[in-house]
Amino acid sequence: MSADFRSDNVAPIAPEILAAIAAANADSASAYGDDPWTEGLAAKFSALFEREVFVFPVATGTASNALALSAVTPPWGVIFCHAQAHIRVDECGAPEFFSGGARVLGLAGTDGKLTAGELAAAIAAAAPHGAHNMQPAAVSLSQSTEVGRVYSVADIVALARVTHDAGLRLHMDGARIANAVAALKVPIADLTWRAGVDILSFGATKNGAMAAEAVVCFDEATAATFAFRRKRAGQLFSKMRFVSAQLDAYLNGGLWLRNAARANAMAARLAKGLAPLPGVSLLVPADANEVFARLPEPMSFALLAHGFRFHPWDHAFGPGAVRLVTAFSTRESDVDGFIAAARAER
Amino acid sequence: MSADFRSDNVAPIAPEILAAIAAANADSASAYGDDPWTEGLAAKFSALFEREVFVFPVATGTASNALALSAVTPPWGVIFCHAQAHIRVDECGAPEFFSGGARVLGLAGTDGKLTAGELAAAIAAAAPHGAHNMQPAAVSLSQSTEVGRVYSVADIVALARVTHDAGLRLHMDGARIANAVAALKVPIADLTWRAGVDILSFGATKNGAMAAEAVVCFDEATAATFAFRRKRAGQLFSKMRFVSAQLDAYLNGGLWLRNAARANAMAARLAKGLAPLPGVSLLVPADANEVFARLPEPMSFALLAHGFRFHPWDHAFGPGAVRLVTAFSTRESDVDGFIAAARAER
Amino acid sequence: MSADFRSDNVAPIAPEILAAIAAANADSASAYGDDPWTEGLAAKFSALFEREVFVFPVATGTASNALALSAVTPPWGVIFCHAQAHIRVDECGAPEFFSGGARVLGLAGTDGKLTAGELAAAIAAAAPHGAHNMQPAAVSLSQSTEVGRVYSVADIVALARVTHDAGLRLHMDGARIANAVAALKVPIADLTWRAGVDILSFGATKNGAMAAEAVVCFDEATAATFAFRRKRAGQLFSKMRFVSAQLDAYLNGGLWLRNAARANAMAARLAKGLAPLPGVSLLVPADANEVFARLPEPMSFALLAHGFRFHPWDHAFGPGAVRLVTAFSTRESDVDGFIAAARAER
Amino acid sequence: MSADFRSDNVAPIAPEILAAIAAANADSASAYGDDPWTEGLAAKFSALFEREVFVFPVATGTASNALALSAVTPPWGVIFCHAQAHIRVDECGAPEFFSGGARVLGLAGTDGKLTAGELAAAIAAAAPHGAHNMQPAAVSLSQSTEVGRVYSVADIVALARVTHDAGLRLHMDGARIANAVAALKVPIADLTWRAGVDILSFGATKNGAMAAEAVVCFDEATAATFAFRRKRAGQLFSKMRFVSAQLDAYLNGGLWLRNAARANAMAARLAKGLAPLPGVSLLVPADANEVFARLPEPMSFALLAHGFRFHPWDHAFGPGAVRLVTAFSTRESDVDGFIAAARAER
Repeated sequence: MSADFRSDNVAPIAPEILAAIAAANADSASAYGDDPWTEGLAAKFSALFEREVFVFPVATGTASNALALSAVTPPWGVIFCHAQAHIRVDECGAPEFFSGGARVLGLAGTDGKLTAGELAAAIAAAAPHGAHNMQPAAVSLSQSTEVGRVYSVADIVALARVTHDAGLRLHMDGARIANAVAALKVPIADLTWRAGVDILSFGATKNGAMAAEAVVCFDEATAATFAFRRKRAGQLFSKMRFVSAQLDAYLNGGLWLRNAARANAMAARLAKGLAPLPGVSLLVPADANEVFARLPEPMSFALLAHGFRFHPWDHAFGPGAVRLVTAFSTRESDVDGFIAAARAER
Repeated sequence: MSADFRSDNVAPIAPEILAAIAAANADSASAYGDDPWTEGLAAKFSALFEREVFVFPVATGTASNALALSAVTPPWGVIFCHAQAHIRVDECGAPEFFSGGARVLGLAGTDGKLTAGELAAAIAAAAPHGAHNMQPAAVSLSQSTEVGRVYSVADIVALARVTHDAGLRLHMDGARIANAVAALKVPIADLTWRAGVDILSFGATKNGAMAAEAVVCFDEATAATFAFRRKRAGQLFSKMRFVSAQLDAYLNGGLWLRNAARANAMAARLAKGLAPLPGVSLLVPADANEVFARLPEPMSFALLAHGFRFHPWDHAFGPGAVRLVTAFSTRESDVDGFIAAARAER
Repeated sequence: MSADFRSDNVAPIAPEILAAIAAANADSASAYGDDPWTEGLAAKFSALFEREVFVFPVATGTASNALALSAVTPPWGVIFCHAQAHIRVDECGAPEFFSGGARVLGLAGTDGKLTAGELAAAIAAAAPHGAHNMQPAAVSLSQSTEVGRVYSVADIVALARVTHDAGLRLHMDGARIANAVAALKVPIADLTWRAGVDILSFGATKNGAMAAEAVVCFDEATAATFAFRRKRAGQLFSKMRFVSAQLDAYLNGGLWLRNAARANAMAARLAKGLAPLPGVSLLVPADANEVFARLPEPMSFALLAHGFRFHPWDHAFGPGAVRLVTAFSTRESDVDGFIAAARAER
Repeated sequence: MSADFRSDNVAPIAPEILAAIAAANADSASAYGDDPWTEGLAAKFSALFEREVFVFPVATGTASNALALSAVTPPWGVIFCHAQAHIRVDECGAPEFFSGGARVLGLAGTDGKLTAGELAAAIAAAAPHGAHNMQPAAVSLSQSTEVGRVYSVADIVALARVTHDAGLRLHMDGARIANAVAALKVPIADLTWRAGVDILSFGATKNGAMAAEAVVCFDEATAATFAFRRKRAGQLFSKMRFVSAQLDAYLNGGLWLRNAARANAMAARLAKGLAPLPGVSLLVPADANEVFARLPEPMSFALLAHGFRFHPWDHAFGPGAVRLVTAFSTRESDVDGFIAAARAER
């Protein structure tokens, strides 16, 4: 096996999580979430977030995001996000579908990050003519961003202030929130509700789960109708214990953070190894588990020929750009082998 | 552990399927279905159905049904089904949601089965005033039915004729189709496309999978847009291999049929053991893996006190009625123990 | 011209209303409702209803009903109504569309009227399994009913109590509410908000307008988002003054009630004249402006041959049944001519 | 009365159309479009378009556009239009609502016009990742554009080629198509179906109707389901004759074109009179019935003080910009008075 840097989605299931699925399989269990694994999640997530939260396991990031967004926008609402946001470009209109027709509006911003000023301006400009216009309703941040950077606590606080001052709600697409927490080394509470996040898509699949995400609501009113939204979206699993057991194992003993830290460390190692190579330039600081770099064309070809796998990213960064994603399962030897092969090709 | 007859949803994962998940975990794999497990399903399902079919793995029965129905009705369509149909009473409006507002109309019928005559009459009566009325669009059959009976090939042929003569499309909710095939001992092709079914929700979760269903389209035009429907519904899994590996293992070596035959045999054994007991009456012939019986109240209480688990079903059959569902994992000793305990209580 | 009893929809525009349209045409006026006609409606409707109300002019009964219902049900809600209700059988799924997928559930009931007992039972039975079921959300009453009867104040109070006790909202389809008010001779406030109605479709088109209805909200929270609902449904008219001028004229000097009283009187005269004829039977008491009768077949044929126009109603009442609808424009000579012709045919 | 240049929506009903409404009021008539006025429209529109067309009267421009678009995009489709397009910025999400969640994507372009090159590039870039992306489905052109320019036949042919080569459908928002036809002096067929337009929102309200628009379908397959779309959207009028009579009168004797020519001439007169004034600059050539100009601030104030009415348009063109819209009802004296007052203020 050669290292596969295409995405953290290509990674396997973390052994602890696969073991948890197997362990949950010993006997019969109540269906549809009336099982001990699911019922235990409320306490576990509340402990993690240092307050009472309302947690809804689902199975894909798209479902998690679209359901969460549908809870914070009316059908005539506008959801502001970065132009590169996954919810805008990679979910085939799921937010529009789940919300009943809301609009996902992409804003510019360096490194996949919204800025408070641009957000405020966009909200202010969005509905000059009352009922003739779709109404600003929500803001969605990707943490970490689509290019592997992280919003600091201060960034989020500033964006939350703009969001709330305008009467909007703040969603965080946390498909890679574990990587952001690992990078920033702050409590997840500080990066979410304490900073002003109203609803969170808490990802686990990219960081070791098989298929498990959680929508975390920080207010009871939003949570009150969520069970209906989830069921009618086909995300209430009959054998829910196997989704919940993944999340349970993911939180146990800090696996989520350990996995993310490992992935981040591998990305840092990759960036550090690549940076000094002739003809190579790093395109974005590798805050989390993604490295964006420009490689000489022969180097890319040679690496692919060696069996290393990664995606070109020229659509965003121009010719020669590639994306390298690390995961909990990335080994030091994968990274070192990649760098060695790259060095050999200079 | 005492026997749990509440539902086949309470059953664990079949060992072959759990092993398949583990086996699929050896290495990295392409995300979103570009993996060998998913790519192999087309051939496997086509072999099973004795013709080319288009197969779309999803993860819940509700998603499977709602997506399939959305592909065969416009938003102003009427979907005819039995009044007890899962799509009508147990999916929180998922068919309405996925279709954009279609109507699910419940018809009467013994044993959860539609009859050709009543269906024809209902279709004929549905839209007397042209554009003022929602338009008949689809018919949905549950196989096996919500009370554990099965439609024969002739039943389906007759219903399909009514459906197609009126220009409608025929959907089969096959959450328990394996049990029906095992009961009828005919090729699944005979019960589906050869009999006139246009689109099938092929269930696996109740019969041994962890969370895996497949929408099987029998025509290419319907299949052409299905990938978009699935993605925007949040049912395209990033680590799709683990859904597909379940379906792969489910088909391998006839596991699906073997599991269903076992569940059916256990239901038959249960029915046979209960029938002669004083005060007990069977309410519906146990064609598949469900037994509906009326038990004396003290008998029910005693069984529950022994730790046996099952649901009352008085809402459908009146006082004293219970539902007993068997699964692939039901043991002869579970059944025999239940009967012995019941007999002891007479 | 022979009398046309097919519907009150076949009637022309009342001269006062046509004159009002012409009068509103003298000059330019602000678009989209920022005009004196529209702005004056709040005060006029508030006076009519003896309290502050929030009024939204629209142009069709279907839009009025579907918009109103969308404001009182979530997409996963159940709307309870009579099986014959216009919203269920004659609007091609508009309530489903506008609500984003709610279900319209028809209940039985004599004379097109729901009864408190049956409604309570239906609500109680609707959602036994929590998030698995669509949730009871609203009740819709047609006043007058689809067969020309009226709910008394006491009827509505009783139904409102059941509705509110269950946490639901009460909608009234008042396409013919003027006829009901004229029949009952009570203030419209007593038949609506004082009795517990939360939102009203106040019809005018059938009773003399060209194309004008009003959604009347009795609470500010529901009204708060209504402008967005209306605009995105294509019901905010650029030359709104001409819709509002119709409603203005309709209220002026009690035209609405005078027109309805006239229509009712003509129906009563028709019923009184027909009742004694041999072979004729009245099928429903003619409370408002509709007469349902069974006529001997030769009598129906002869009347049609004379040029009288009316619809058979056998789908509801069996062979020989007809519906005769009177309007503000029905003349005594129309009625007397009809009776004379019928009498000649006995 | 001083001249009102705020919009063509502030204009009254053309006398010929008001007379037609009154004329249609003589007697009873079949409801819901089974009347001679409505039935006659097919032939009249087919004659106008020099081929068989399928015509559906509705009552607002928003309904016309949103219904037409819903017929040419799936819920997961992308509709490309100019960033200023009415469907994108002024309809509160109606296209999203009617289509079930499609996306309206705004492109840049001088004078409110799309260019073939930019359109082709946008379509090509829209869906690089298959089912992960919303799918290009339709293109919508505003004719005349939101800033009063017109697409030439060659423009439309070029855009239609790009549209059809990519498998998309072409919609034209013809809220002001009469003004474009009057400007270009070509048959409307040349500007629509002969140039490649698949479906047209044919506006009448801004050009003299009270509330009447027509969706014109150029292919039977799209038309086949339109009646259902219209009904469930609340746009099938019970007294449809009064909508259709407006359209009938609008076409009779070329009223539509005469009215538009008059409005255009008044805009040209306004532009010609303003252009030479010191400090005044015209911002866009006045092809149709809209003039965009920058006026010295004192001049704007003085004109408003004189009672002339018009809107600032600084959001699009910066400080000092105003929009002046003429209509069929604009008099030469309105224009000349405006120019004289402006000249007096220089």
